Amino acid sequence: MRVAITGAAGMIGRKLAERIAATGMLGGKSVDAMTLVDVIIPQVAEDFTGQREAFSADLSAPDVAARIIADRPDVIVHLAAIVSGEAEADMEKGYRVNLDGTRALLEAIAAIDGYCPRVIYASSLAVFGAPFPPKIPDDYHLTPLTSYGTQKAMGEMLVNDYSRRGLIDGIGIRFPTICIRPGTPNKAASGFFSGILREPLNGQAAILPVDDDVRHWFASPRSAVGYIDHAATLDTATMGAQRCMTMPGVSATVGEQIEALRAVAGDAAVALIRRVPDPAVVNIVSGWPRDFDTARALSLGFRAENTFQQIITVYLEDEMGQKAL
Amino acid sequence: MRVAITGAAGMIGRKLAERIAATGMLGGKSVDAMTLVDVIIPQVAEDFTGQREAFSADLSAPDVAARIIADRPDVIVHLAAIVSGEAEADMEKGYRVNLDGTRALLEAIAAIDGYCPRVIYASSLAVFGAPFPPKIPDDYHLTPLTSYGTQKAMGEMLVNDYSRRGLIDGIGIRFPTICIRPGTPNKAASGFFSGILREPLNGQAAILPVDDDVRHWFASPRSAVGYIDHAATLDTATMGAQRCMTMPGVSATVGEQIEALRAVAGDAAVALIRRVPDPAVVNIVSGWPRDFDTARALSLGFRAENTFQQIITVYLEDEMGQKAL
Repeated sequence: MRVAITGAAGMIGRKLAERIAATGMLGGKSVDAMTLVDVIIPQVAEDFTGQREAFSADLSAPDVAARIIADRPDVIVHLAAIVSGEAEADMEKGYRVNLDGTRALLEAIAAIDGYCPRVIYASSLAVFGAPFPPKIPDDYHLTPLTSYGTQKAMGEMLVNDYSRRGLIDGIGIRFPTICIRPGTPNKAASGFFSGILREPLNGQAAILPVDDDVRHWFASPRSAVGYIDHAATLDTATMGAQRCMTMPGVSATVGEQIEALRAVAGDAAVALIRRVPDPAVVNIVSGWPRDFDTARALSLGFRAENTFQQIITVYLEDEMGQKAL
Repeated sequence: MRVAITGAAGMIGRKLAERIAATGMLGGKSVDAMTLVDVIIPQVAEDFTGQREAFSADLSAPDVAARIIADRPDVIVHLAAIVSGEAEADMEKGYRVNLDGTRALLEAIAAIDGYCPRVIYASSLAVFGAPFPPKIPDDYHLTPLTSYGTQKAMGEMLVNDYSRRGLIDGIGIRFPTICIRPGTPNKAASGFFSGILREPLNGQAAILPVDDDVRHWFASPRSAVGYIDHAATLDTATMGAQRCMTMPGVSATVGEQIEALRAVAGDAAVALIRRVPDPAVVNIVSGWPRDFDTARALSLGFRAENTFQQIITVYLEDEMGQKAL
């Protein structure tokens, strides 16, 4: 099987490529070729024994989509995107990359007779906008309140339409907020959800800008890669016209995150969290969804963690080298 | 007030321009300039005393959007579109005109500092796709099952996002199926809804390809123009982020249409309807919505007919020169 990954230098893209390299597999099938694309040159794990190509390109530039599919990959994982904050600050760039880039990829595929690859489209909880029901079902209407969410929702519609026409075999997966993100703190408004766990686990202080009762929807980086792995070879015959859905995850409050940290790492770790309310962050996060009904994704076999403690354990195992419990 | 109309040579566009010419008004305000655009040169009613411009252009071609807004119209009515059947048959053309054309218009507006016109976007019931609840509310999720519906739904999202950013002051109106369409029969799958009334009212035979219990959502051409008139100066301050909604109409079965015809024109008219079931039309229409909850549009002051007999009366008055009852 041949696999192409856009946004391959991002956190999920890297972990996906590493997993394919380490196992030689995706979705239970052997992978003999990998094409990795990002705006910076993605690294290819040295241990991958198949055919490798990695190049830097902007998907919205001419002919880049055609190059990505030059070898007719069986599975295309489309992770490339301008993130929420940048898409809001630079409207032109957000629409160009997130909407036009996605469309360029789909159009390039559609232009090739008889080629109908699996396209895994990375969507987002940002397709939803307040007000929300307590648990958001998959048939809840899409009311994005950011340009990023608008672009992701438009991409979902393209994935549905191109799949309905038999031009691609698409699946759109709405990722939960990925937690614990490895690496250093970033400036995303959601950064504290990882920071209040990651920094204390590494013996460092962390700042918590919101109240303990803030609730949100989470899964680990390992689950994020797992969704893609599952989507790569999932039978779409029964999916009908609606190809996009929210992925399973854990609904947890900040307070529950902290208690999970305490259970895993003790009071000393929790003591490293400093409460410094930030009204701007409080305001942004108040518009975010809290919980989802993901019955459809579960029935299709998608899985995530069941408790927040499991999410922390994944970090200890995958990022801090601790043995699986 | 300055007004621009795209798709001005279409049925609704023509009627709108005629009404503005006849009354000199739109939304209760005096209109002193009208720009009419379509792929064929739109006629300007001779009796319009304001500044007039009419030209033929494809909105998706370069610089056309800039020309439409050259005089900074206060209200832009964006009716131009490739219709459902053609957008399905010619995918490239449908996306180019319906999506890119809409975006070109919004981008041209956004490029002008301090210019934030009212944009009235013609959307469609085709943004909805089966399965449906008995009455579809405005917060029902958009699941288009055609490329046309996909493009219209994507346009709604653009109207919401550009309005949220303060770049336009947009309102998206989802038109009911317009009935009775004047003129000659066309090949649209929905054509019979008008044909079984229009032809008998003109003493001609008509073919009914579906069962009497088929239910659908209707309004008159006069109501269609009325929605636009109301939207032109509606206060959007209370509308929030969701700028698009289904317009009021009449939910009626084919049998109810026929009984309304009988009440207005007698048994002889009804006898001109020949039942010739067409499985292809039956199949297409079975996926169409039947009824809507338009509480939001009603609360904002949009109005339509209350009975199907009123819809027929509008045809007699507006197309056959009969005096208002």
